[in-house]
Formats: sequence, structure tokens, C-alpha cells
Amino acid sequence: MIFSVIGRISKSSASYIFRFTSHQNHNPTKTLIPLSHFSTMDAKESSATDLKRPREEDDNGSPAAAVASMETENGDQTKEPACFSTVIPGWFSEMSPMWPGEAHSLKVEKVLFQGKSDYQDVIVFQSATYGKVLVLDGVIQLTERDECAYQEMITHLPLCSIPNPKKVLVIGGGDGGVLREVARHPSVEHIDMCEIDKMVVDVSKQFFPDVAIGYEDPRVNLVIGDGVAFLKNAAEGSYDAVIVDSSDPIGPAKELFEKPFFQSVARALRPGGVVCTQAESLWLHMDIIEDIVSNCREIFKGSVNYAWTSVPTYPSGVIGFMLCSTEGPDVDFKHPLNPIDESSSKSNLPLKFYNAEIHSAAFCLPSFAKKVIDSKAN
Amino acid sequence: MIFSVIGRISKSSASYIFRFTSHQNHNPTKTLIPLSHFSTMDAKESSATDLKRPREEDDNGSPAAAVASMETENGDQTKEPACFSTVIPGWFSEMSPMWPGEAHSLKVEKVLFQGKSDYQDVIVFQSATYGKVLVLDGVIQLTERDECAYQEMITHLPLCSIPNPKKVLVIGGGDGGVLREVARHPSVEHIDMCEIDKMVVDVSKQFFPDVAIGYEDPRVNLVIGDGVAFLKNAAEGSYDAVIVDSSDPIGPAKELFEKPFFQSVARALRPGGVVCTQAESLWLHMDIIEDIVSNCREIFKGSVNYAWTSVPTYPSGVIGFMLCSTEGPDVDFKHPLNPIDESSSKSNLPLKFYNAEIHSAAFCLPSFAKKVIDSKAN
Repeated sequence: MIFSVIGRISKSSASYIFRFTSHQNHNPTKTLIPLSHFSTMDAKESSATDLKRPREEDDNGSPAAAVASMETENGDQTKEPACFSTVIPGWFSEMSPMWPGEAHSLKVEKVLFQGKSDYQDVIVFQSATYGKVLVLDGVIQLTERDECAYQEMITHLPLCSIPNPKKVLVIGGGDGGVLREVARHPSVEHIDMCEIDKMVVDVSKQFFPDVAIGYEDPRVNLVIGDGVAFLKNAAEGSYDAVIVDSSDPIGPAKELFEKPFFQSVARALRPGGVVCTQAESLWLHMDIIEDIVSNCREIFKGSVNYAWTSVPTYPSGVIGFMLCSTEGPDVDFKHPLNPIDESSSKSNLPLKFYNAEIHSAAFCLPSFAKKVIDSKAN
Repeated sequence: MIFSVIGRISKSSASYIFRFTSHQNHNPTKTLIPLSHFSTMDAKESSATDLKRPREEDDNGSPAAAVASMETENGDQTKEPACFSTVIPGWFSEMSPMWPGEAHSLKVEKVLFQGKSDYQDVIVFQSATYGKVLVLDGVIQLTERDECAYQEMITHLPLCSIPNPKKVLVIGGGDGGVLREVARHPSVEHIDMCEIDKMVVDVSKQFFPDVAIGYEDPRVNLVIGDGVAFLKNAAEGSYDAVIVDSSDPIGPAKELFEKPFFQSVARALRPGGVVCTQAESLWLHMDIIEDIVSNCREIFKGSVNYAWTSVPTYPSGVIGFMLCSTEGPDVDFKHPLNPIDESSSKSNLPLKFYNAEIHSAAFCLPSFAKKVIDSKAN
């Protein structure tokens, strides 16, 4: 049982990508053992503070510049173009210093797209059992099978907590799924969206039409640009809700979880306006969450809450959200007052995950987390 | 970048175990690239009805009888004793036909125990980031990092839903964690436990003292034997609560989820008594869950409910529970009436996961599941 291995090594990033393929049998009449191929990324472990996102790397250290090698049928090694082996028909494995010592892997049926934008590596593949999958810089962003949980919760937790949201800002969320969910709210009159990476938008429109359908809503104003800068220039008190569908709060995205950014968000929100931001996993990142809660407690004079939900293909199987409101009319996030009228949705597709019960349940935290978060927030 | 591969193939079971190790560099003065090792199991995909648990296999097809081969530094293949490579210092990967197309992997620091009982393969390893891990037949049963969620929820969801539980039966649960949690209830006078595999009990006492501490409670009566037979012989109406901490509801364990078993449970419970049984993942096994709910609805004339919770190292990151009560005093599982007095615990260790809020939240289901389950249960 011998495999050949194609290794692609990124020196300065924390990930390796390997490709394992079964040897071709030299006797073509003999049946090959039906082994699935396997690709995996391995990660040097380092503390969060050491991390640099690949977009910060120079060209020499980028994954695309890494060396790839391939063992051929007769055992010789040959060079292979690096752009070829990012993901292959086999298995994709997700590993990161943000969740050291564990990996989640999906069987790949077909690689549909791979590209390198100005900001990140972009991959789309057809998985065996999770539908199509979008991967940015080696990290799963969505799968068709479970994207409903994340998109519906990050959108409706804030929007169902306030009456008649009219003007909404989405930071990130280039796949369009949050737009799709915002569009379910008939009270919304205008949706600004600021996504830094146009390739993510284009790829989503091409490969995830059921997600990117959100772009078809005439209320959407898409801006390709930096969310931090966009918010700094936003008119004071102009939004009812801001949704931050960001990558992990380390590296460049780190500032999306720090005081100046939250101050910009608070400034852009009307009194009693709400923000919902992706806030990692209770099981993996309590230290990060603790800092975010502390910062939000200082800045948002309304309420500050943490919620979480199940997303199987995210690390540890859960993702959390920070939900905060500015000073003004009280917002009780735990008791939604603005139910979704599913019949008003343009697509008329029913909600798959969100309902009012699961909205309230999302704020019930395990004791180990509740103790820490309650000590930081009200 | 070449790896050697040690493959261990189980012909009749659905799993392969592979071991990848980096080639030794022929020049000892040259620094090796610091790659983690990786082991994985691959699974033939088949429907749940085709499945046979390894304990049903004959010796020829058992994993221990499989052939292992290894590529040495110079590329030759050599035989390796199969007993050597079940888990190696590297990575453990969990794959199964019950969750085809995906795998969760943990980095292994040290294999602490591996054995083969009359029923299953038993492995304990020290993981890099999840503490010690117990694996039965290739499937993770518990890790020190997240076992609290499963043990506390499967125990306190039923026991906090009835006043003054006195006599409790645990089926399975050989690690002792459910016993540890039952023992927190001072009203409990007697705990019968029926576990089929003594090796699981012994291994847990040796390697998981914080879990197996439950065995030290003087109220525990441990029976090594078949839970189905135990229940058939149990006195009618004798238990306030039955907790079924079983393996997956396929193969031999399948009958723990079918009508005759639930009928035995219902017979052994007092009027208004409760059962809580492990009931798989909403994301992966809605077909199985639908059948269980239908069966329970026929048999339990009190209430029938499904709850779920987050357990990162279980497939899809969640696990569910069926909670049913017999005809008699009403049981409202969603509103616990029997809070835990943490000061009464023998160990005085606080609960890590369970609290009254998360108890109620566990019954709030995503819309895709609620629709199916509500159509089968009240």
C-alpha cells in the first residue's frame, strides 16, 4: 500500500498542503485498490499574536511560490506547477494555528475553481457530502449543506431584535448569503455592503447562485473596498444595523474586533441601533472572546451579548456572535420582536435554520463560558 | 517531499487506517522539515442498513488480522505487525460510513493503551490539545476537553426534569461519566449500571480518573452484561429514570433504538418516569431520528422530545438526545424543576456545561429538524 505524495509548502504561512495519490498499477489489467486520495494541510503551532494572514505575506513566502513535487509511476520525482495542487480530487483538510491539534476534512469530488486574488487564495470544490464548498486561505467559509445556520443566524439575530430595520450595513460577507437573508426583511429600504475582495463576489455568483441571490435585490449597494475605511467615512447615526461577516480576528481582520473599529460602528449606528459580528468559538477562543466582550462593554452603552450556533464545518462545530446595541431605545436581543414574514421573501424559499425559539436559545451559554462572559458584560 | 505509508486494511469493516511518516533524510546533518505525522482511516461508503459493527466480524475480517506494509528509507516494502499501527504518535482520524465524506482528526502525543476486548477495539491516547481521548472501534467516545457537555446533558436533562429521582438505571456509559453526574443528585438512593464491556470500565478507571470517579459512589451497583437482557429482567415500574449512553443505533446497538427495547424501558419505568437516550446528529441522521421519534411516540404515552447539544469531537459537532416519559405525572422536559445543588456533589467540582438555561435551550431545534420532528411527536 504505497502512495505518492505531492507536497506544497508555504514557508511563511502556517500551512502546508499535501496531495496523496495512489500509485498506478504497472499491470493495467489488475484492479487498483479503491483508495480515496487525501490532501491535508499541516500547521506550525503558534500563538494568535504571532499570526500573519497570508495577505500580509510577500511573494516569496506565498503559497503560490512554494515548490511542488510529484512521484511518478516509476518512482521518480518531477516538478509540478504549484498552481495545480492546491486542492485535488481527494480530501481537503483544514488546519490552522487557531485550532491547533485538530483538523476537519471533506472528501473532494471536483475542484471547480482556484485563484489568487489580491488578498487571498480562493478555492471552490464540489465535496462528496457537503455540496459545493468555498475556501479562503485554506479555511472553509461555507458549504451548501450547512451555510444556512451561519447566514440566517448572523443576520436575523440582529434584525429580528429591532423593530423595522430600514438601513443596514454589511461588512464582508462577499458570498452574498447575508444579503440574501437581509432581503427577507420587507422593512429594509437600503443595504450597503462593503467587501474587500471582488473575486469572492464573482466566484460566489458563478458557483453559489443560491447564496449570491442576495445580490439581485435592488436595495443592495455593493462597494468593493476596505470595511474599516468605509465605516470611518459613514455618516454618523445612519444605520439601524451593522453586520460584520468577517474572517478570524487575527492579522488584518484583528482590527475588526478592536476598540477603534467598534467605535466606528457605534458612531455609524443610530441610537438603539445594533451590531452583530462573527465572534469565534466558545470551545476554542475564550481568550479572544473575553477581550471582545470587554471592548464592546466599554463602547456600546446599550446591551452587550454573546450568542452561538451550530455550524458543522466550522472549527469545533460552533460559531459565536457578538450582539451589541448603542445607547437609546432598549434592545432585548434574547426576545426577538420582529418576526420574519417568510411569504415576503423575494425567493419565497423558507428559512432552513432560524426561528424565534432558536434565536432565544442562542444566548444560553454553557457554564464555563457564561461565567467568563457574564463577568465582562451585563 | 516523500512520505512512507503504513496501511492497515480491514476488509470487512468499513475502515482503513494509514500511517504517514516522513522519510529520514539520508544526510543526517541536513535539517528535516518539521512535518507532523498523519494517520487516517478511510471508509467505504454504504447505507446505514448495510452496516455491520466490527464486533460482528469474523476473525479473518477483523482489523487485527489486516495486512500492514511500510515503505522504508530506500523505498522497499516491509511487513509490520498489524498490532503496531492502530494509532501512532501522529494523528488519529475518525471516519465512518455513518458520516461519509468527512473526517475529524486529532494530533496524537502518545498512545497510552490499545487492546481488543470481546466486543471492540479499545484505544486511549494523549492528544495534543483535547487531553486524553477514549476511542472504541475507531470512534471517539470522549475527550477530556469536551466530555463535560455530553455527560452533563445526557444526565441532567432527564434528572432535572423530575422531582426527587431515587432509583436510576444507566445502560452503557462504561467510562463512568454519567455515574459521576447522577451522583450529583442527593435524592438518588440507588444507581444500577449495566455495561457490556468490562475493558471500558477498567480502562476508564486507569486513564480517566476524573470521569470514572462516578464508580466511587456507594450508591452504584455495576453489572457487566447486556443492557437489553438486563432491562427485560428488571422489575416493572422500578426506575424513576433510565439513561441510555449507547453507541450508534446501527448494528447490535440498533435494537437499543427499536420498539422492543423502548417497550422494556417503558415497562421498567414508574408512571411519569423518564428515559434519555443518545440520539445522533440532526445534521447527519435525520432519517434515523425520524424513526426513533415515531417509535417513541407509539410507546411513551407521556411526552416525547428531542434535545441537542454541542460536542466538538462528535461528528458534525453536535449530539442529540431522545427524552420521553411514561404515562403518569406530567413531565415538562423543557422547564426543569429539579435544580442541581452543586454543593452536594461528593467531589464538589462545579458543573462545567449544564445550567437551567442551557437545559431549556437544548429543546429549541433548527427549522429543518423541527418540521420533521414535530410531525412525529407532540
